[in-house]
Amino acid sequence: MTLNSTHDSRRESWVDSANRTETDFPLQNLPIGAFSSPARRGPSLGVAIGEQIVDLGALSAANLLPGRIADACCTQNINTLLALGPSAWSGLRQQLSELLGEDTCPPGPQRDRVAACLVPQSQATMLLPAAIGDYTDFYASIDHAGRVGAMFRPDQPLLPNYKWVPIGYHGRASSIIISGTDVRRPRGQAKGDAGTPHFGPSRQLDYELELAALIGPGNRLGEPVPVATAPEHLFGVLLLNDWSARDIQSWEYQPLGPFLAKSFATSISPWVVTWDALAPFRIPAAKRPAGDPAPLPHLADANDALHGGLDLHFEILLRTARMSAAGLPSRKLAEGRFATMYWTFAQLLAHHTSNGCNLRPGDLLASGTISGPEPEACGCLLELTARGTRPVTLPNGESRAFLEDGDEVVLRGWAQAAGFRRIGLGECRGTIFPARE
Amino acid sequence: MTLNSTHDSRRESWVDSANRTETDFPLQNLPIGAFSSPARRGPSLGVAIGEQIVDLGALSAANLLPGRIADACCTQNINTLLALGPSAWSGLRQQLSELLGEDTCPPGPQRDRVAACLVPQSQATMLLPAAIGDYTDFYASIDHAGRVGAMFRPDQPLLPNYKWVPIGYHGRASSIIISGTDVRRPRGQAKGDAGTPHFGPSRQLDYELELAALIGPGNRLGEPVPVATAPEHLFGVLLLNDWSARDIQSWEYQPLGPFLAKSFATSISPWVVTWDALAPFRIPAAKRPAGDPAPLPHLADANDALHGGLDLHFEILLRTARMSAAGLPSRKLAEGRFATMYWTFAQLLAHHTSNGCNLRPGDLLASGTISGPEPEACGCLLELTARGTRPVTLPNGESRAFLEDGDEVVLRGWAQAAGFRRIGLGECRGTIFPARE
Repeated sequence: MTLNSTHDSRRESWVDSANRTETDFPLQNLPIGAFSSPARRGPSLGVAIGEQIVDLGALSAANLLPGRIADACCTQNINTLLALGPSAWSGLRQQLSELLGEDTCPPGPQRDRVAACLVPQSQATMLLPAAIGDYTDFYASIDHAGRVGAMFRPDQPLLPNYKWVPIGYHGRASSIIISGTDVRRPRGQAKGDAGTPHFGPSRQLDYELELAALIGPGNRLGEPVPVATAPEHLFGVLLLNDWSARDIQSWEYQPLGPFLAKSFATSISPWVVTWDALAPFRIPAAKRPAGDPAPLPHLADANDALHGGLDLHFEILLRTARMSAAGLPSRKLAEGRFATMYWTFAQLLAHHTSNGCNLRPGDLLASGTISGPEPEACGCLLELTARGTRPVTLPNGESRAFLEDGDEVVLRGWAQAAGFRRIGLGECRGTIFPARE
Repeated sequence: MTLNSTHDSRRESWVDSANRTETDFPLQNLPIGAFSSPARRGPSLGVAIGEQIVDLGALSAANLLPGRIADACCTQNINTLLALGPSAWSGLRQQLSELLGEDTCPPGPQRDRVAACLVPQSQATMLLPAAIGDYTDFYASIDHAGRVGAMFRPDQPLLPNYKWVPIGYHGRASSIIISGTDVRRPRGQAKGDAGTPHFGPSRQLDYELELAALIGPGNRLGEPVPVATAPEHLFGVLLLNDWSARDIQSWEYQPLGPFLAKSFATSISPWVVTWDALAPFRIPAAKRPAGDPAPLPHLADANDALHGGLDLHFEILLRTARMSAAGLPSRKLAEGRFATMYWTFAQLLAHHTSNGCNLRPGDLLASGTISGPEPEACGCLLELTARGTRPVTLPNGESRAFLEDGDEVVLRGWAQAAGFRRIGLGECRGTIFPARE
């Protein structure tokens, strides 16, 4: 998709809160989510605009959306819309941009009809945007893979396959939860000091900052998606916190990979920022260091060198129960940039389908922990505290090697570039509550 | 569930083909599947009886099923019925047993009404029985784990966690296909002889004989299922072929486990044999060898020693394209027994939920490759041919290290015990067709 009027930074919305500098959701963003509210029966799809939500079901009922799109917007999740593909998505974006634009929808009956479809975000409960069939978690940050590898395999931090194969594994779809849902500390088996394992609450609970892509039309079983057309299957992105119990993980993960260390909860942010909205923020994919192998042909795309990367920024915030009680704000633990990832989403998707595996609308492909080369660009506590050996000190004197009960973790993300409105991903929030007795 | 009249081996059905000795589907079995047929609009649920299917939707429409069950049987998959739980399942079994019994449904109007709901299996196309949300694959055969481990880690075949943790990983749900669907040879990355990887058709395609349990009501996120009540969540079992590309697998699997080596296809048999039907075939779980650790308390159940195991038998059959063309029958490659598994389904389920992970109706828990200690009890070619070094010779002079295009693999399974009718699992069938150009 090329840039068009929907990306024009000069345009404002008649929804005032969308024009504030600090908003995540200006007219140029238009992310989609699912919500319920006291005034609506059942879940609806909606689009964030400033501090409001445009109810897509209501817009559709008011005949303000074109036919095929209108039907897809009257459902309780985004899956039908996902299956329609890029031209439908662009059509919806164009229409919403016009209906919400100050310039394109002047005061009058039409604006009134759209305004009647607004719901304040403060009155809405956000829900999972999609019925997620399969969730795949990759390992696309070479800095994360290298730093974690060094802890477990000092002699060989990066395994020989890393620069050839986009490493990934199947995650658990059932335990994906929406931002704001509390996360219960898992119990599990870990290796005891005496050499025998014990079962109990995890003592090394961690977060992982990730970006996830929501899949559109997908592919038929047995028919790989070429890397060049992979972006046509990417509807949009959201923030994902891949909560991880490191003590359970290190004991269970060989030889078949992480399982219960991850499957107790995975949080996602509610607003899916579309691939279209991110068009101004595509940048060349990270350049491979000299000496690294070139991607094999099925993972090589000339477009990646032009705009395979995404110039997204992230931050990770922590607030403990004591900080909260004392009225202290969250403490920023780390920052992240997506630009340093070793594999692009197009490569991840092409790899995923290269064996014929079918993706379905609503599948989720997560990047893996987003870490950079800088010491502060650590996407999880495992890295940030060097496996708990260098705890982080907090403003009130507390310290953290891993997460404790009552800790709230917030992930934030945004895109920014000269000449364009800042596009926010919103936030992904979760608080740890104690393990079951 | 205790034994009752539905298990009585003396009882026969008025559907003649159900009374033949060799049938998989006598009156005592009553497995459930989904099918379509020219005479029906859309998919229906059905129960196999001899060579016939009783259309549950039609039975329901004829008011021959009690209310709550009737509604759950009018859908296109088994998920609603799965959510109802054991008492509903037993109620359905009892009712079907009566409607199909020679003794309980004598010639007359009622029998005629049931007979009007029969569809010959030869006219039906079987479909996936459930909408499978998450598919988990375990590694519960210690003989398989040890034999495979010895190939990859001669110094340490069995990792230290094996006897403590039921090892498993998340599988791919989207590529689960019904028996009879052809399987396209996957392409993928493998380690070349020259040390650099290449991308192309897998040269080490394999099958894996597995048994999978279909999950009933499941549990809420954060609320583990105790091992003692785990069987209440097991609706029934089916055969599963976890097709595996060994060359892709050995290159990709570290550190996050198998991914594309498995996700191109997983075949399942169409008939779900209920836990109730298997009641006569429950046997003590395999006794752990002296010196092995006892299961940790959350995986220890006194019932396992009594009837945690299942006395199921399997065979794996192969027919190559040339054998087929020559009119030769399949060749039996191996036999298997479920009785030797190291972990029971109750333990697998309790482990899976021990961290709070939620199971949903329709989730699938597979056992992992079923192998025994005997050389002929190898559940995959990797073991049977010692990683391809000892090819199997076939009756027509062909040999196989791994699967070739045109090969058909059939898995069969059944339960047998003195004083009871043999209960068949049916078969799980698939033929390899060539990789995409």
